[in-house]
Amino acid sequence: MSDIGKKSLELHKTYGGKIATHVKVPLNTNEDLSVAYMPGVADVTMACTYDPQNTYVYTMRQNCVAVITDGSSVLGLGNIGPFGALPVMEGKAMLFKRFVDIDSFPICLATQDPEEIVSLVRNIAPSFAGIHLEDFAAPKCFMIEERLQDLGIPVMHDDQHGTAVVVRAALMNAAKVVGKKLSDLKTVISGGGAAGQATAKLLVGDGSQGEYEHVADVIVVDSKGIISETRDDLDPYKQHIAQITNKEKKEGDLNEALRGADAFVGLSRGNIVNPSMVSLMAKDPIVFGLSNPDPEIMPNKAKEAGARVVATGRSDFPNQVNNALGYPGIFRGALDARAKQISMKMLMAASNALAESVEDLSEENIIPSPFQDGIYQHVAAAVKEAAAS
Amino acid sequence: MSDIGKKSLELHKTYGGKIATHVKVPLNTNEDLSVAYMPGVADVTMACTYDPQNTYVYTMRQNCVAVITDGSSVLGLGNIGPFGALPVMEGKAMLFKRFVDIDSFPICLATQDPEEIVSLVRNIAPSFAGIHLEDFAAPKCFMIEERLQDLGIPVMHDDQHGTAVVVRAALMNAAKVVGKKLSDLKTVISGGGAAGQATAKLLVGDGSQGEYEHVADVIVVDSKGIISETRDDLDPYKQHIAQITNKEKKEGDLNEALRGADAFVGLSRGNIVNPSMVSLMAKDPIVFGLSNPDPEIMPNKAKEAGARVVATGRSDFPNQVNNALGYPGIFRGALDARAKQISMKMLMAASNALAESVEDLSEENIIPSPFQDGIYQHVAAAVKEAAAS
Repeated sequence: MSDIGKKSLELHKTYGGKIATHVKVPLNTNEDLSVAYMPGVADVTMACTYDPQNTYVYTMRQNCVAVITDGSSVLGLGNIGPFGALPVMEGKAMLFKRFVDIDSFPICLATQDPEEIVSLVRNIAPSFAGIHLEDFAAPKCFMIEERLQDLGIPVMHDDQHGTAVVVRAALMNAAKVVGKKLSDLKTVISGGGAAGQATAKLLVGDGSQGEYEHVADVIVVDSKGIISETRDDLDPYKQHIAQITNKEKKEGDLNEALRGADAFVGLSRGNIVNPSMVSLMAKDPIVFGLSNPDPEIMPNKAKEAGARVVATGRSDFPNQVNNALGYPGIFRGALDARAKQISMKMLMAASNALAESVEDLSEENIIPSPFQDGIYQHVAAAVKEAAAS
Repeated sequence: MSDIGKKSLELHKTYGGKIATHVKVPLNTNEDLSVAYMPGVADVTMACTYDPQNTYVYTMRQNCVAVITDGSSVLGLGNIGPFGALPVMEGKAMLFKRFVDIDSFPICLATQDPEEIVSLVRNIAPSFAGIHLEDFAAPKCFMIEERLQDLGIPVMHDDQHGTAVVVRAALMNAAKVVGKKLSDLKTVISGGGAAGQATAKLLVGDGSQGEYEHVADVIVVDSKGIISETRDDLDPYKQHIAQITNKEKKEGDLNEALRGADAFVGLSRGNIVNPSMVSLMAKDPIVFGLSNPDPEIMPNKAKEAGARVVATGRSDFPNQVNNALGYPGIFRGALDARAKQISMKMLMAASNALAESVEDLSEENIIPSPFQDGIYQHVAAAVKEAAAS
């Protein structure tokens, strides 16, 4: 076991987990009890019964997001179920509190049936102002998220959109560093899962995003090769990807996709790109190997093969494309706007705000640190504004 | 609106509800983040995947109880649904934290279907060490609780057992004040709902409770009269009550039940007992009118009619039989024991401990205040011991 793993086990054991609850109101006398609880609470109850919107005024719901998973696709570990997922979901909830003061609670499910999950989320929604879906396997993650969009509160699958927002921000700044614009980039995405599909969709845009920039083209490559309309093995979600990407109608493998591409985004698995593949790319290649713990190509190899800007998902290299940079500000903004959904415009705004918040942009500094002052608040403000517009 | 209601609305609005979450671990540097979250958490995840019991060592689950309701029977207000129920459930969660340091979270359901509720509770259980069911209407509350007893964590319907524990403690001390023993008491319960049935069962015992005292007899009276084996309108739950109560096989109304009774426990509705009914009782009558806001009989009337010890559910009279005295210590003890269920023995132990914790026992002091030092800890220790025995 790694040193950091040992430290983590010890930390979790010492503190008994990472989050707890906290009482906000005074509660030291019988008078306090009669105001905060019985009999006073009866009037609060009546106010919330009469108008459920009053739960946003009088209860913790107003600031509360559930982090929900079925543990079907956790970290690089795959389908490990609810118990293994719990420390990760508690971590997500911890970051919600730490970075944007959202009260969040991890709910790990003992079912992996999509219909049961949809029904369960609907049934617990009255306690929450937002639903953060995490680590659901593709393709069921798409269906679950879609079916919950009419819930009246923001529901977002983080592996999709949180990741897409942070990747787009990093890509925007990487383009700047090499003297290009986001809208110049022909981008290849390796990985046809949740993150790959959502990133493709956010990079391409759908016309609803107004003035926000989109890339020149995207090609998505899954384990069978380039996703193109000629393939007959695509589920409906990948068929849609085929329709909105790959303008040049390429077919073939990752090599074919990379020929002439400006940027590579790896959201698949380690060590599938070699230096000769990087050399097929256009001038000043941008190479993101975001698979963890092993990137699609190690940074030194990518650099040697000519990559100008290199990013990974790891904290021990420069340019960590860290999912933790995305979702807290997105939900903070959505909650502050009392948005009913998280739109593509809101995601674009989050992404732009994140990109803008990098100071001293350089080849080794295209994305901020999670501890940089004010980044989450900047993202949240942009999301809130986009929600209202 | 009452003055206390106005104050309560203002308090809830000012603080934005009563509970929040809180981060327990240091989280100020990238190093902190790598230990508490990625990549360190991967080892914690593997430990919890390998053995789900490790969630009790490494995650917040170990100290976490869900307060769950469908809002079908809230306060005296009836079936008001999840939104009206939320401030009350948040209040329950608040008391869990304030009195016994349990991290508790309110989950208000958008379904009232018993099968859906059972399945939902099973499916969210991996995040919790205990399930507190609240304000489910009878008789579905009995089925829901029963069906969840194999979950491997304590599941308790508070309106039943929390109430029964506190009533039994008060009754024990009231008996002492009038020079009787609990086991001398012929007790009449008005109310055949969740609280009435559970109180009857706890007072009568079922043989599993070891050396703990039980009353001489109980008669339960519902809206149709005395629950007796001769009635043909009883559901299976009330049929069971008929079997274990009413040794003298009385039939008739509340008047008939009260004739010669030592104690009356009202868990039904206001103003159904008049002074002439109290005068039918045995010497030194004990009269608990616990319906809120209007007791079954007002204390002054009960006293005038000869009652020696009088209790209500209200904070503005002496001897408040307050449900908040029960459940926090019961769950604290059950969690500390890592009990898989809450047994009758544990409830008896909680009840005895609560009764013992009254100092200066008198007619007007049969039950402690929620703020009395150490009462919850005393109850928890007794429950933990009973769980182990």
